[in-house]
Amino acid sequence: MDQELLEKVMNQVKAELGTNAAVPAAETQTKGDATGINTAVGRTEFVGTSLGDTIGLVIASVDPMLKDSMNLGKFRSIGIIGGRTGAGPQIMAVDDAVKATNTEIISVELPRDTKGGAGHGSLIIIGAEDVSDARRAVETALQVLPKYFGDVYGNDAGHLEFQYSARASYCLEKALGAKFGKAFGMTCAGPAAIGVVLADTAVKAANVEVVGYSSPGNGGTSYSNEVILCFSGDSGAVRQAVKAAIVVGKKLLGALGEKPKSTTTPYI
Amino acid sequence: MDQELLEKVMNQVKAELGTNAAVPAAETQTKGDATGINTAVGRTEFVGTSLGDTIGLVIASVDPMLKDSMNLGKFRSIGIIGGRTGAGPQIMAVDDAVKATNTEIISVELPRDTKGGAGHGSLIIIGAEDVSDARRAVETALQVLPKYFGDVYGNDAGHLEFQYSARASYCLEKALGAKFGKAFGMTCAGPAAIGVVLADTAVKAANVEVVGYSSPGNGGTSYSNEVILCFSGDSGAVRQAVKAAIVVGKKLLGALGEKPKSTTTPYI
Amino acid sequence: MDQELLEKVMNQVKAELGTNAAVPAAETQTKGDATGINTAVGRTEFVGTSLGDTIGLVIASVDPMLKDSMNLGKFRSIGIIGGRTGAGPQIMAVDDAVKATNTEIISVELPRDTKGGAGHGSLIIIGAEDVSDARRAVETALQVLPKYFGDVYGNDAGHLEFQYSARASYCLEKALGAKFGKAFGMTCAGPAAIGVVLADTAVKAANVEVVGYSSPGNGGTSYSNEVILCFSGDSGAVRQAVKAAIVVGKKLLGALGEKPKSTTTPYI
Repeated sequence: MDQELLEKVMNQVKAELGTNAAVPAAETQTKGDATGINTAVGRTEFVGTSLGDTIGLVIASVDPMLKDSMNLGKFRSIGIIGGRTGAGPQIMAVDDAVKATNTEIISVELPRDTKGGAGHGSLIIIGAEDVSDARRAVETALQVLPKYFGDVYGNDAGHLEFQYSARASYCLEKALGAKFGKAFGMTCAGPAAIGVVLADTAVKAANVEVVGYSSPGNGGTSYSNEVILCFSGDSGAVRQAVKAAIVVGKKLLGALGEKPKSTTTPYI
Repeated sequence: MDQELLEKVMNQVKAELGTNAAVPAAETQTKGDATGINTAVGRTEFVGTSLGDTIGLVIASVDPMLKDSMNLGKFRSIGIIGGRTGAGPQIMAVDDAVKATNTEIISVELPRDTKGGAGHGSLIIIGAEDVSDARRAVETALQVLPKYFGDVYGNDAGHLEFQYSARASYCLEKALGAKFGKAFGMTCAGPAAIGVVLADTAVKAANVEVVGYSSPGNGGTSYSNEVILCFSGDSGAVRQAVKAAIVVGKKLLGALGEKPKSTTTPYI
Repeated sequence: MDQELLEKVMNQVKAELGTNAAVPAAETQTKGDATGINTAVGRTEFVGTSLGDTIGLVIASVDPMLKDSMNLGKFRSIGIIGGRTGAGPQIMAVDDAVKATNTEIISVELPRDTKGGAGHGSLIIIGAEDVSDARRAVETALQVLPKYFGDVYGNDAGHLEFQYSARASYCLEKALGAKFGKAFGMTCAGPAAIGVVLADTAVKAANVEVVGYSSPGNGGTSYSNEVILCFSGDSGAVRQAVKAAIVVGKKLLGALGEKPKSTTTPYI
C-alpha cells in the first residue's frame, strides 16, 4: 500500500508543480509526435513544433505594410522558425532545409534567451516564391531539429554545444560565417570561460580555419554567457577539432555540477 | 486517512520547494493590499509595490552629482517605477499617470529580464516640479498597473502581450512611438516567431498605421525573444487589430504548451 | 509510520524534481572544498571552481590563430575566470589577485546572466609571462571570491550588491573606472529602480567622487535590470557611502519579498 500511495502522491506533486520543474534549462520538450510536428491548431500559418520550444510557421503573403519593416526584399511568402532554447540547432536544421527546398535565408536573429540558461534563442526567416516551398522548408527543419540538439550537453551550471556539417550551405554562411560548400564546425560553452578553452582545444587539434570567434561583450553574441568558435576546413580535420573539444568540454563543465547530458542523442 | 496524509505531504512539499515553483515566468506576485500598494517600509522614498515585482519610489531632490549622469534636465524631483516582469504594462500605467498629474516622462529603459522569461523588465523615470506630484503619479501608476497585465497571457513556453489605449499620451509616445492623442495598439509574443504572425494578423485585420516593429536582433528590443508591433489609428480599427491578434496568439502559443492564461483579467 | 512515509515521499520528491528547485537565483553552489577550489578534473587547464558557478582556468600558450581574435596583445599565457552569477565579486577577487601576482588584466566582459536573475555573469582574462603566474592569480581569485559575495543580498524579487576596496588596483580601474590606488565603492540593485535610490543615498551620505553610473538601457550594463554606481574617494567616506546604501537597499528590496539574505557573510 505504501508503494501505491507513493505513486499517488508523486502524481499529485507533479500535477501541482508542473511537469517541467526538474527539467534543466538546456533540455526541452515538445508536444509533437515522433516527427516533432504537432498540427492540431487550426491556423493556416501553423506548421508544427519541436524541441527547444521551437515553433514553425508560414505566411503566404506578408502584408505590404510590414514588408519593409521586416526587410523581406523581393519575397512575400515566408517561413518562420524560432525557439526559446537554441540557436545552433535551429541554424543547422534550416541549413539542411534550404539545401532541400527552393527557398532562401532572409534573416537570422539571436535573442538572449534559453529560459534562464546561458545562451540564445532564435528567430530565422526564410523566403520563397511560393508558400508551399516555405512550408516544406519549415517542415524539414522541424523534423531534423532533434538531431542537432544531440551534441548540446547540459547540467545545472551551464551547457556545451557542438555542431558539425560536412558541407555548409546558405544558413550557416549567413548566420555564422561558414565557407559555403566546405565542412563547418562549432564549439560553444556557457559559462563563457569554458568556451575559451574549447576554442583553443579545437584549433590545436586539427588544421582548421577560424571564421568566427564570439564572446559575451565583444561581438557575435547577444550578451549571452558563451564563447563560440566557428571554423571551416576539410571534413576530417573539422570533425577531429570538434571531437577533441567535446572531450574537454564535458570534463570542465562537469567540474561545476553533474556529468553533462546530451539533450537527445549525440550525432558527431 | 490517505486523503489526510496526501494533504499533509503536499503542504510539506510546497513548504520545502517554495510556493513559487509552479508559477510561470509571466505571472507575478505582490505583497501589497488590494490597491497594489504596500507602504510599511519606513523610507520616505518608498511609495509602493505592484505586480511584476514592480516598485514605485520618489526622490525629492536628486543629488547634483547624479543629475547629469541621469540626464534629468531641469528636474530634481523624480518618480521611479520599475519591475522585473513587464515593460508594456508599466508604460501603459505611467501613460495614465502622466495624463492625471503634473509630471513629465524623463526616460524609459528596457532591461532584458522577466526572471527567465522571454521579455523585458522596466525602469521609468518621471520628473516633477514638486515631489508630491511625482508621488501622486507613481501611486496612480501602481494602482492601475494590474489592469494592464490583463492581456499578458503566459504558459511554460512563453508569453503574449497586448495593449490598447484610446488616447496615447507622453509615455506611449516616448517609449513606443505612439501618435500623441490617437488610439494606440500593441501586439507582442515570445518566442518571437509567434510575434511575426501576430504583427501580420493585426495589420491585415484593420486599417492601422504601423509606428514600430521591433525584433530580437534588429532594434527596438534589448535582445528579448519577442517581435513587437506598435500601431496608431482610429480607436475602432486599433481595437479590432489587437483583438484579431489575441485570438491567433492564444492558438499559436497554446501549440507549445498549456492554454495561455491571463495574468489578471483581460481588459481589451 | 506516517512520519516515516512522509520522509520517504520527500526524498522521492526531491530526487525527481531536482534539489535546486527551491534555490533562489541569487544563491549559488560550489562542489569545491573549504577553499573553494576543486581540483579533480584531470585537465592541465583546470584550476578550480567557486561560488556563482565560477570556474578558473589557464592556457599555457594560446594558439596563434586565436591570439588576434582574443586581443591578447603580447601575452600567450592566460588565466581565465568566469561565472554565471556575479560580475562584481569576480572583479574584486581578480583585483586582489593582480595585486598579489605578476599578471595583467587583458579583458573584462559582462554577459547578461545570473541564471534568470536580474544581473550579470562574468568573463575575465588575465595575461602573464609565465603560466605559473597566471595559475597563481586564478587560484588567489577563486580563494578570495566567497568574501566578495558577502554583500550580495537576494530574495525572490531581486538582489543587492555592494563592494568596497580600500585601494583599487588594475581590475577595478579597467572594469569599473575606479581611481587607481584610491578607495573604491559600488552600489547596485535589481530591479533597477531600487538602484537609483541607492545611488542617490550613497552620494548624499559622504563626500565621494562618482566614476560611473550604469543603467539598463543607457550604457555600462549588458541590458541587465540594474542601476550601478561606482565611486572613488577617501576610504572613510567611501565606506560610509556604501554602508548607508546597504541599510536603504535591504528595506526597499525587502518590500518586494522576504528579508534579503547575504550569499555568504557580509564583509563591509
